[in-house]
Amino acid sequence: MNALVTTPKPPYYVVIFSSVKSENDDGYSEMSARLLELVINQDGFLGVESARNEIGITVSYWESLDAIQKWKDNRVHKMARKKGREKWYDKFTVRIARVEREYGFNSE
Amino acid sequence: MNALVTTPKPPYYVVIFSSVKSENDDGYSEMSARLLELVINQDGFLGVESARNEIGITVSYWESLDAIQKWKDNRVHKMARKKGREKWYDKFTVRIARVEREYGFNSE
Repeated sequence: MNALVTTPKPPYYVVIFSSVKSENDDGYSEMSARLLELVINQDGFLGVESARNEIGITVSYWESLDAIQKWKDNRVHKMARKKGREKWYDKFTVRIARVEREYGFNSE
Repeated sequence: MNALVTTPKPPYYVVIFSSVKSENDDGYSEMSARLLELVINQDGFLGVESARNEIGITVSYWESLDAIQKWKDNRVHKMARKKGREKWYDKFTVRIARVEREYGFNSE
């Protein structure tokens, strides 16, 4: 993932997932790939950006709180969150926020 | 920076800065360090998290939109943004959002 997401005019919603990984990577990248495949097809999903070095930050963009809730109810996503707490993460914080303003820059 | 930020009960605000660096790093890490020193002392600043690999994501947390505006007006921060567009970034997006919900996990 190396591109920035293009989003519509605000308002829309973001989920900010900040995390510290454990040392256990067992099944992690497979699950990440599977979740990405699934989330792309969710109604109301606008895109996702992700970066990790000392900590990880994943920001996903959504049309509505309802769309976020439906993704939270997804069966595979639920299983992934359970495994995340059991194995892959030492700690994480999830924040849901309403985007009110956006601006950008592109040198091209 | 390798810790997650602890924030108060919502609502509060975030600035999400997603970026693609240019190849020009001239003065970049010095400016990053200087901005971090300055931002820590801004009224209404709650913390910042940052990660970079293919793209960079920096999320700063704020008490209010007014606090964000005052930081935007900071002289050194203005200079940094100018240099950012001229030298350090190929592209970036800035989003300002109001955090409505937060939850977390800590394995300890």
